[in-house]
Amino acid sequence: MKSYNVGILGATGAVGREMLKVLEERKFPVNELRLLASQRSVGKTLTFNGKEVKVVLAEKDAFKGLDIVLGAASNPVAIEFKDDIVASGAVFIDNSSAFRGDEDVPLVVPEINPEDIFKNKGVISNPNCSTIITLVAVNAINKLSKIEAMNACTYQATSGAGINGPIELRNQEKALLEGGKIESSVFQYQIAENVIPQIGNFLDNGYTKEEMKMQNEGRKIMHLPELKVTCTCVRVPVVRSHSIAVTVYTENKLDLNDVKNAIANEKGCRLYDDPEKLLYPMPLVTSDQDIVFVGRIRRDLVTDKGITLWCSGDQVRKGAATNAVQIALKLVGLEC
Amino acid sequence: MKSYNVGILGATGAVGREMLKVLEERKFPVNELRLLASQRSVGKTLTFNGKEVKVVLAEKDAFKGLDIVLGAASNPVAIEFKDDIVASGAVFIDNSSAFRGDEDVPLVVPEINPEDIFKNKGVISNPNCSTIITLVAVNAINKLSKIEAMNACTYQATSGAGINGPIELRNQEKALLEGGKIESSVFQYQIAENVIPQIGNFLDNGYTKEEMKMQNEGRKIMHLPELKVTCTCVRVPVVRSHSIAVTVYTENKLDLNDVKNAIANEKGCRLYDDPEKLLYPMPLVTSDQDIVFVGRIRRDLVTDKGITLWCSGDQVRKGAATNAVQIALKLVGLEC
Repeated sequence: MKSYNVGILGATGAVGREMLKVLEERKFPVNELRLLASQRSVGKTLTFNGKEVKVVLAEKDAFKGLDIVLGAASNPVAIEFKDDIVASGAVFIDNSSAFRGDEDVPLVVPEINPEDIFKNKGVISNPNCSTIITLVAVNAINKLSKIEAMNACTYQATSGAGINGPIELRNQEKALLEGGKIESSVFQYQIAENVIPQIGNFLDNGYTKEEMKMQNEGRKIMHLPELKVTCTCVRVPVVRSHSIAVTVYTENKLDLNDVKNAIANEKGCRLYDDPEKLLYPMPLVTSDQDIVFVGRIRRDLVTDKGITLWCSGDQVRKGAATNAVQIALKLVGLEC
Repeated sequence: MKSYNVGILGATGAVGREMLKVLEERKFPVNELRLLASQRSVGKTLTFNGKEVKVVLAEKDAFKGLDIVLGAASNPVAIEFKDDIVASGAVFIDNSSAFRGDEDVPLVVPEINPEDIFKNKGVISNPNCSTIITLVAVNAINKLSKIEAMNACTYQATSGAGINGPIELRNQEKALLEGGKIESSVFQYQIAENVIPQIGNFLDNGYTKEEMKMQNEGRKIMHLPELKVTCTCVRVPVVRSHSIAVTVYTENKLDLNDVKNAIANEKGCRLYDDPEKLLYPMPLVTSDQDIVFVGRIRRDLVTDKGITLWCSGDQVRKGAATNAVQIALKLVGLEC
């Protein structure tokens, strides 16, 4: 089997480490693995397939000879190295939001628009985490009847803010229990025993950048240029897995059982919907997995063309690392 | 000034204790205060206006001579004693959900439908906590243009499940930090570092009882018999204050500044909406207060007659105890 030279840019962060794990789990055919990071991580080692791999400096010439670079770095870092990566001949599968809106950059959820992968001109963007989880959950509905609009409210885990999010949560919990001082640096305010209705900066229309991603990225991924989405993104004191309450408004009225069957048969989804047995998706159940759990499926009570549901998925995995590795697998012609 | 004999049924619970506090703060003209509870609380003492008051047994004849009974007990207890309370000549202002749907029982939020108080036939119901907080937040909008429908997602605090909710949360946080065993008895599942999309039992339509209250009680309180509400109620690991993300669909298109001004001038509301200064309602900010904070006000992106906002309020106070005491104040002709 052909094998590939794979780089991870931002290898030591939460998403970078998870990418390494997923490459291993999915048995991605890796020839050389190159872990790239900023100066302060150079010299650290990470383990891949039982071998220690040293982290090297991400710099202009560091991408030579690579076939694929998985990007797990911030927007400025992704922007800094994009041209170098493309010039080196590698395909850059980038988890930052820097290029998601670019016309010549495919934005891909492999369960939804795998064909877009092959339209790339050197860069493929990995979508926003809440957007991936929500769209995987509603994609089956879109196949039954075109989705015209959505109203979504998120319950986003602290690990969405990177490796230090859950550490801050735990430190604050400790302080609350023991009477210590609450310190906040990752989040705008105390997140322990609180919820914060702001993720990302505010735009002129009163929405945050994070909230607009559900509409902007949703349109591009689902090829629904007219899709309208109202979204409220909220950080909650959870370690891992984002949950989303979403009402989907479709072109035609749907039968609820058809919707449940379609979700049960959708790739990447697990129908987890048995109120009598108290089964519904929760972070507790969905963390450290690649599947989006979907439950609480019921008719919208406002319009007869609405379906309301609740989904939850691990945003570090399916919302980021797993989705990127799946794109890489598809790109080299393997099953994902 | 005339003073009144006031009873609290279920005085030792979370809401009962808060009612005592609010009666004191609001200087309710109390002549006799009678604290009523079940056998296991008899003999306990609570402090009111600096004096110790003994808890007595709630039984058939225990309500004689009272003018007002504030109900802070469960549905079965409220049902058991309702007729005795009414027969004693007292008005029963009940926080349980037992009588909220009854035709001859007014359901009152004093900022919204104070006139209904005087239609009582011995019983006045206090609405559901999330419903009170949401309706206080959107009432100003309803005055600008009739609200036809709402889509609401809640972020409900553990104290909504009673005095043991926050204790369970803290015990679980301790177990997570120290590696102990997680025990759940108040909630269906672990609530620490998790969110649970179930509050109350499930109905045949897939909604929970709690979720249907927003529509059923909303219709009655706002005198909007056609109001349609889709609601998802979610428990979050917060001690106090419920938060709600709500999109309101009105008959006419509204100007966003008119909405903000109306909310700023609405009784019981505080406009708390300055994204540039990162000001938005949060449990951290709104706990132990009687005011509902409203922020994140913006246009719905799905319809041009929708307004989306985020509100937060202390559900033990405005969502329960304060609202009941406000009803009592109005009932005896005082300002609330």
